[in-house]
Amino acid sequence: MEIFVYQKGAHQVEEVFTMENIPELLANPDNLVWVDMEAPTVEEDKILSSVFHFHPLTIEDARVTRNAPKVEAFADYLFFIVHGVKLETNSFNFLTKELDGYLGKNFVVTYHHENFRSIDVVKRQVRNSSFVCRRGADYLLHQILDELVDLYLPIVDDFDNSINEIEERIFSQQRSNNAVLEEILSLKRSVARLRRITSKQLNVLYRLAHGEFPLIEEAHLPFYRDVHDHLQRVSDLADSYRDLITGLLDIQFNVVSNRTNEIVKFLTIFSGIILPLSLIAGIYGMNFENMPELKSHNGYFITLGLMLAVTVLLLIYFWRKGWIFQKDEDE
Amino acid sequence: MEIFVYQKGAHQVEEVFTMENIPELLANPDNLVWVDMEAPTVEEDKILSSVFHFHPLTIEDARVTRNAPKVEAFADYLFFIVHGVKLETNSFNFLTKELDGYLGKNFVVTYHHENFRSIDVVKRQVRNSSFVCRRGADYLLHQILDELVDLYLPIVDDFDNSINEIEERIFSQQRSNNAVLEEILSLKRSVARLRRITSKQLNVLYRLAHGEFPLIEEAHLPFYRDVHDHLQRVSDLADSYRDLITGLLDIQFNVVSNRTNEIVKFLTIFSGIILPLSLIAGIYGMNFENMPELKSHNGYFITLGLMLAVTVLLLIYFWRKGWIFQKDEDE
Amino acid sequence: MEIFVYQKGAHQVEEVFTMENIPELLANPDNLVWVDMEAPTVEEDKILSSVFHFHPLTIEDARVTRNAPKVEAFADYLFFIVHGVKLETNSFNFLTKELDGYLGKNFVVTYHHENFRSIDVVKRQVRNSSFVCRRGADYLLHQILDELVDLYLPIVDDFDNSINEIEERIFSQQRSNNAVLEEILSLKRSVARLRRITSKQLNVLYRLAHGEFPLIEEAHLPFYRDVHDHLQRVSDLADSYRDLITGLLDIQFNVVSNRTNEIVKFLTIFSGIILPLSLIAGIYGMNFENMPELKSHNGYFITLGLMLAVTVLLLIYFWRKGWIFQKDEDE
Amino acid sequence: MEIFVYQKGAHQVEEVFTMENIPELLANPDNLVWVDMEAPTVEEDKILSSVFHFHPLTIEDARVTRNAPKVEAFADYLFFIVHGVKLETNSFNFLTKELDGYLGKNFVVTYHHENFRSIDVVKRQVRNSSFVCRRGADYLLHQILDELVDLYLPIVDDFDNSINEIEERIFSQQRSNNAVLEEILSLKRSVARLRRITSKQLNVLYRLAHGEFPLIEEAHLPFYRDVHDHLQRVSDLADSYRDLITGLLDIQFNVVSNRTNEIVKFLTIFSGIILPLSLIAGIYGMNFENMPELKSHNGYFITLGLMLAVTVLLLIYFWRKGWIFQKDEDE
Amino acid sequence: MEIFVYQKGAHQVEEVFTMENIPELLANPDNLVWVDMEAPTVEEDKILSSVFHFHPLTIEDARVTRNAPKVEAFADYLFFIVHGVKLETNSFNFLTKELDGYLGKNFVVTYHHENFRSIDVVKRQVRNSSFVCRRGADYLLHQILDELVDLYLPIVDDFDNSINEIEERIFSQQRSNNAVLEEILSLKRSVARLRRITSKQLNVLYRLAHGEFPLIEEAHLPFYRDVHDHLQRVSDLADSYRDLITGLLDIQFNVVSNRTNEIVKFLTIFSGIILPLSLIAGIYGMNFENMPELKSHNGYFITLGLMLAVTVLLLIYFWRKGWIFQKDEDE
Repeated sequence: MEIFVYQKGAHQVEEVFTMENIPELLANPDNLVWVDMEAPTVEEDKILSSVFHFHPLTIEDARVTRNAPKVEAFADYLFFIVHGVKLETNSFNFLTKELDGYLGKNFVVTYHHENFRSIDVVKRQVRNSSFVCRRGADYLLHQILDELVDLYLPIVDDFDNSINEIEERIFSQQRSNNAVLEEILSLKRSVARLRRITSKQLNVLYRLAHGEFPLIEEAHLPFYRDVHDHLQRVSDLADSYRDLITGLLDIQFNVVSNRTNEIVKFLTIFSGIILPLSLIAGIYGMNFENMPELKSHNGYFITLGLMLAVTVLLLIYFWRKGWIFQKDEDE
Repeated sequence: MEIFVYQKGAHQVEEVFTMENIPELLANPDNLVWVDMEAPTVEEDKILSSVFHFHPLTIEDARVTRNAPKVEAFADYLFFIVHGVKLETNSFNFLTKELDGYLGKNFVVTYHHENFRSIDVVKRQVRNSSFVCRRGADYLLHQILDELVDLYLPIVDDFDNSINEIEERIFSQQRSNNAVLEEILSLKRSVARLRRITSKQLNVLYRLAHGEFPLIEEAHLPFYRDVHDHLQRVSDLADSYRDLITGLLDIQFNVVSNRTNEIVKFLTIFSGIILPLSLIAGIYGMNFENMPELKSHNGYFITLGLMLAVTVLLLIYFWRKGWIFQKDEDE
Repeated sequence: MEIFVYQKGAHQVEEVFTMENIPELLANPDNLVWVDMEAPTVEEDKILSSVFHFHPLTIEDARVTRNAPKVEAFADYLFFIVHGVKLETNSFNFLTKELDGYLGKNFVVTYHHENFRSIDVVKRQVRNSSFVCRRGADYLLHQILDELVDLYLPIVDDFDNSINEIEERIFSQQRSNNAVLEEILSLKRSVARLRRITSKQLNVLYRLAHGEFPLIEEAHLPFYRDVHDHLQRVSDLADSYRDLITGLLDIQFNVVSNRTNEIVKFLTIFSGIILPLSLIAGIYGMNFENMPELKSHNGYFITLGLMLAVTVLLLIYFWRKGWIFQKDEDE
Repeated sequence: MEIFVYQKGAHQVEEVFTMENIPELLANPDNLVWVDMEAPTVEEDKILSSVFHFHPLTIEDARVTRNAPKVEAFADYLFFIVHGVKLETNSFNFLTKELDGYLGKNFVVTYHHENFRSIDVVKRQVRNSSFVCRRGADYLLHQILDELVDLYLPIVDDFDNSINEIEERIFSQQRSNNAVLEEILSLKRSVARLRRITSKQLNVLYRLAHGEFPLIEEAHLPFYRDVHDHLQRVSDLADSYRDLITGLLDIQFNVVSNRTNEIVKFLTIFSGIILPLSLIAGIYGMNFENMPELKSHNGYFITLGLMLAVTVLLLIYFWRKGWIFQKDEDE
Repeated sequence: MEIFVYQKGAHQVEEVFTMENIPELLANPDNLVWVDMEAPTVEEDKILSSVFHFHPLTIEDARVTRNAPKVEAFADYLFFIVHGVKLETNSFNFLTKELDGYLGKNFVVTYHHENFRSIDVVKRQVRNSSFVCRRGADYLLHQILDELVDLYLPIVDDFDNSINEIEERIFSQQRSNNAVLEEILSLKRSVARLRRITSKQLNVLYRLAHGEFPLIEEAHLPFYRDVHDHLQRVSDLADSYRDLITGLLDIQFNVVSNRTNEIVKFLTIFSGIILPLSLIAGIYGMNFENMPELKSHNGYFITLGLMLAVTVLLLIYFWRKGWIFQKDEDE
């Protein structure tokens, strides 16, 4: 647990306080108190109820990590759940991390089980300058959400790359069908997950940004709207990716079916040429006693010439059907 | 029929009362009366109209079990229908059970034809401690709904497993096509059913949780909101499963069509090599009198060599077309 | 035209009145007058304008039978159009019948060109007991709508059976592809029709059930809500059937394409075994003078053995590829 | 330009006036003036601004013909754009024609570049009887819109026929695949166009019919509602056609893929029978010196018998696989 | 940076002012000041905060170019982001350019990094005549938006052509499958992008056009509505294109699968005729000592006749199956 306290007019944020100081710190409306609880101990966890007197249901929500984003107003504080994202290494998958928190008149509590890069960034900002704290608790919270949402965009850009990559693989046909299908499926699941999370999170940010909660000063609403707009962009892109990914299955299917077409065409042309020649050979392989051609001196060579002629005629036929010698045809 | 009575300030819930006591129990506003009617007898059934004076349409609804979830407000009570779920053994199917009930100022009536695990749990809680009853009838009802909704999540998790399992079967191709299709169809129906039920049930919980009914104290609304949020999660997952299951049909189709492609490719390569060799054999099987090669001492061995050469050339051709010796190709 | 008159407090409904009595009957607010016009004569038809003074547009709507369900409020009466359904014999198709009508303070007019089973049922109820009439015109109308909507459910259940039946046919492959496709198409049209009608009818019932029209007493709204809920169930089922039927086309396609796969596999295995054997036979059918094997005493039998060995090796190869001897494979 | 003037109480509509009379005619509130401008000259066109003083944007809209249906209220008149339809000869395509117009207290202006059948019909009515004009400008406009919308239904019925026809062609397989696909595509475009236009036009009629504009008397709203309902029916049908047409592509695909299945089955059965027989013939065509069967007196006939036996066994095998002699199978 | 100043009543727009004059110019409410900043220098950029005192978030938005269209109201000015489009040369792709801007009581600020054709057009208009400026800042902004939206339509028309072109290519089969698929994919992405942008931009224009912002005079709302309607048309067309493009994949697939069908049919007919003939030849190539036909003087010719007869019979069979000699069949 880290405690940052900024007293109105001070030049710096203080970090010297401990859990025990929180009640007196909160009592002074000139203080802005940020309590960040990362993987809190049981001891630390208790202050949520004993010191802050938060609603037991919200504390329960904070302790587990299977909640969807939401925001709830209570008499003198807001409870919110938002999700951050983290790219999984070497895959286009990503993980979501739950960040629970409370916003009061003069405090922000952030509660999370995993490390958040965005929170680390804000901590650094808070330490470097009192700027972020000077405008009050709601502005501090906005800063945290802003950093958190900014980390979504790389994920979305990554999807764009993944879709392009899979597209290339489909057309180049260098990966096996099933490998491509599994990648598409996995991407589909990831985008579905992103859409599910952002749609809920957008709703949270929309409500924060549109003056529903008096704890957020009207002058700070544009900042929340800004965060909302950034996430909206993420959500819009995720929506359009979904459509594109569904299309990939059709494309892959089209490509496979065209490949089959090419192979069958080859088989057909090949059989179409060899079978008649074999028939000719078969006919002159018959053992009838009276087959005049067999006795002809040049019969064998005429027959070979006949075979060549048949071959040429069939090639011309296939060419006129557009099955061979198409310069634009991919194989 | 089981009757639980909690008198304000008491330490324990009383279970000694019978049907006949209900009118006087209800008359005392300090009493909280919970009447649980499981597969009620005709006798028991009658108290709905004779003692509680519920609207005849609601009683009719309670008696049959083909209703969708709903909640209706009457002058001094609420009537609700919700659905519980139960996994069918050895299948990813599930059954729904209808729970009808009434919420009054100081009573809860639950009416069901089948046993409900969630109700048994609440009964145990009520017997163990008066905690659940101390906050009134609306809190007791919340407890029942909470337990009931909590049993949805295992079902949904089960779907997730089923989808993964089917996916694996599709790629491993160890089950027959039709068996896989039937499983997909059955899963699709189950998810459609879950979505239909949860969407209605969500609406019921939303209305209960948002202060529409004065019978539910404002201080207890967050508890109902909590139940709503849990079911919302179930519903969101069911929604995204639907998309994934529809995708499975495409995947399965893609896999079958790729398998056909592989088989046709094999046939083509095989015929492509054997047919020309057979033609060569056929040619030298002709019975022309004048075929110089036949008399050559090494003609036979040269011909065998020719066949080998043709084979090698064709293999090279197929390899350059990318049809054989692809290290990444699945078969 | 049948006229039923119930006077407040009477024990029975009177059926002795004729068209001429209607004006005086209506003048008495203690009378409840139900005029049922089935395939009315031109004479009868006239009373709509001459006696009841209904809006000419509504009368025009009543006369033709191509209207969608709707309800419209006028100064002192409601005009409504609802649709009943009737199963077509030996098909999963159904017909809709238009029922037009008016609801006034003390009268109900029903106007239809075809016979309605539901109206016959209500007539029987009205004759048997004055119960239905005692609560006024709006309750009588509710009764008619209730019976009418109740006849939708068998249709919907029938769809369920049809879908299951088609599914079985698809998997059993006992019907031809086109026959199955035509059945799916026909079912699809029927469900689309049902959805179109119920969605409009639901809207009519919703407006009747939610207190929009003062002609319907508040105490009777629950009864209308009940009718609405029943139709809602029909509509929900129709919605989910639509999804299932669309899925059937995919399934059918999957099954056909798998069947093709099976057939191609057979062809490939068969050719794969026979072609090499034929090549061997062809080689030893060549007429070279110097072919040492031909002179070997056991050459023929060794060759037959070679053919057997090739066959066994190929069978093993196909078995390892998973193309034959799969116990789970359907053919 | 045609000018129809009806003076209150008159028995007939006057057609003797010219452009110059319009200002004085409008000045008299007892006059109803209908100015119909079909392909107006530049001179005529000017009166929109010089006499009527319409907003310049509306005049600009009227002059071009690429606008979507809309209605806009100005201080003392309405501007509307609606679309009529016209079937293209010998195709299931249709053209839309734009009708612009203005409705004032005592005037209607209709402005169009093409001839409208519906307007000609209303002109005839106006000349025959003053009935249409007696109820004022808003009723006259309703009459025009009613006739215009009535001409949509034949188009929609035509779609129904076209869909049925294409369906039949698909199953009968008498037209080439590409011809059918092009018809489906063309129909799809037509229905998309119809839906786009009707959805906007419905919105226009909805606003006209629901009392948004005080220029339309409340007593005439039911007439506008009637027009709205008719177009609604068109729109509903177009919606359901869209679904059916999309389904046609799937059906066509299913039929083609089934046809391929049939052909491949034929090839397989044929090869499956001929290849083994050819192998047998090949074996006894080998030139080994020691082949005992060749010397047997009945060897040839036994071999022919063997071939027959193989054929019969294979036919039985294919029959048991369900590939041949299926009475219900379409080919 | 270009500065246009129009003083009320003046005959011409003045362009002689520099950055330094802006504060005094703005102070006079009779001035209309248009500041167009194209790819502004750092110096110029500063006036947004130092002179106009715009909200820092809006300035930040203006500086980067990854924002979606939006409009935000501040105390005495509006901030808006809209997108213009530009066709990419030789492709059906297009680029979007972001235009940020501010509208105040007597000023318009436009801020963009790329050149805008629409802004150049308005500059020319402003220089030629004071007409555009006479009606105030809101009318000037409308003029800019109008020109900007007018450039969308050529893009949309271009899509229409592209879809038609791809359709033709699919049916003519002159381009390779993959080339066509890549074009469809690319078109799909472009339309998705257009839909995403126009839907947001429509919302901006809707809010501007419906009196939400008092900075826009009511008399000028119809002009904004006009711009909105034009973009609505673009958006509607983009919507319907999306459907058509998705259909193209199905069509392409249908065409490929039909092509496969044709090829397989050819193979089948060809094999179906040659294989039996080869069998006959094979039979008479057997070396049995006792084969009576071989000794028949005309055996050879009878056999050739038999082959011909078999060929004719098979051709008749295939013709009756509808596989050959169909005049309407495309190949």
